[in-house]
Amino acid sequence: MKENIKNKILETGAEIIHLKGFNHTGIQEILNAANVPKGSFYHYFKNKEDFGLQVIDYFNEYFSLSCKDILEDAAQPPLEKISQILQRFIEFFRSKDCAYGCPIGNLSQEMGDLSPPFQAKLKEAMDSMVDMYAGIIREGQKSGGISPLLDAGKAAEFLVSSWEGALLHMKIEKSLGPLENHQRFIFEYILKP
Amino acid sequence: MKENIKNKILETGAEIIHLKGFNHTGIQEILNAANVPKGSFYHYFKNKEDFGLQVIDYFNEYFSLSCKDILEDAAQPPLEKISQILQRFIEFFRSKDCAYGCPIGNLSQEMGDLSPPFQAKLKEAMDSMVDMYAGIIREGQKSGGISPLLDAGKAAEFLVSSWEGALLHMKIEKSLGPLENHQRFIFEYILKP
Repeated sequence: MKENIKNKILETGAEIIHLKGFNHTGIQEILNAANVPKGSFYHYFKNKEDFGLQVIDYFNEYFSLSCKDILEDAAQPPLEKISQILQRFIEFFRSKDCAYGCPIGNLSQEMGDLSPPFQAKLKEAMDSMVDMYAGIIREGQKSGGISPLLDAGKAAEFLVSSWEGALLHMKIEKSLGPLENHQRFIFEYILKP
Repeated sequence: MKENIKNKILETGAEIIHLKGFNHTGIQEILNAANVPKGSFYHYFKNKEDFGLQVIDYFNEYFSLSCKDILEDAAQPPLEKISQILQRFIEFFRSKDCAYGCPIGNLSQEMGDLSPPFQAKLKEAMDSMVDMYAGIIREGQKSGGISPLLDAGKAAEFLVSSWEGALLHMKIEKSLGPLENHQRFIFEYILKP
């Protein structure tokens, strides 16, 4: 029950922060939306910063879970796995009318310069995304779909950072065009035999 | 004199917004930093939103001016122009200890979903960056440094959005690595003969 209340605050707060950013979201606003009294917040979180750091973990876990079935599907070739992960997120943003963007990217933009604890935690989350893609790229290099000359770690870093930029671009284009353009350049020019 | 006060408010506000974001910056904070009385603000700007939209114009103009000499240097081949522009911004971020990022990108991330007037004005600014690079890429295709098979507009869009993502990544890495990685992939894999 207790964990349910904590999760409810995290889940509700994550959604509001995803859309509005961290600094622009008030604790009271989250508690109203979650229908939870203020005392509960301070029972589970030391302060707003502590809450924000736990929201990053929440987003990071959500991302890993979203990709798990694709990553573990031994029947899919590595390039197909990357394509399916990107496509799954493209469908998510289609369902959200091209709003929200990536919460890790949004918070990096907003908080990277303002809070060293946020910066460190966001770097951890971004690193784990990069590592996931680097692992798939290495698989693809072994099985032959991706050139062995490519530096897998650097290519994964470029894939992730250019995806973050495409999401940012999507938010002002209000179209999936930048995400489709990202896929096109990544697969036609970089991840190839 | 009057224009000086307006410019002072814009310049000071732009710098604070560049670091902290729009919603997290207060009018009073800008006026204190600019040492200008509150009445002056409302003499030049209808409200905070009107001010924010004029700050976007200010940033856009600053970007164009920063690239002007390189763009007009007929002695430089097109690929060299793109490299010099990116290198100039890399030096800027080196001098700023990898903070700030691109103000147009930051505001796109922050305001793209929250305000249709911001979204429209930011799209205009992003489009003008894309158009600038598309023009140089077309020059390069004519003179032979860049493959004629590349779609110049789409490549320019990818160059800009992946650059925006690299800047976001820089802010949490606190290193120029993501910008150098961007340059490497853009020139080794995409903008080539």
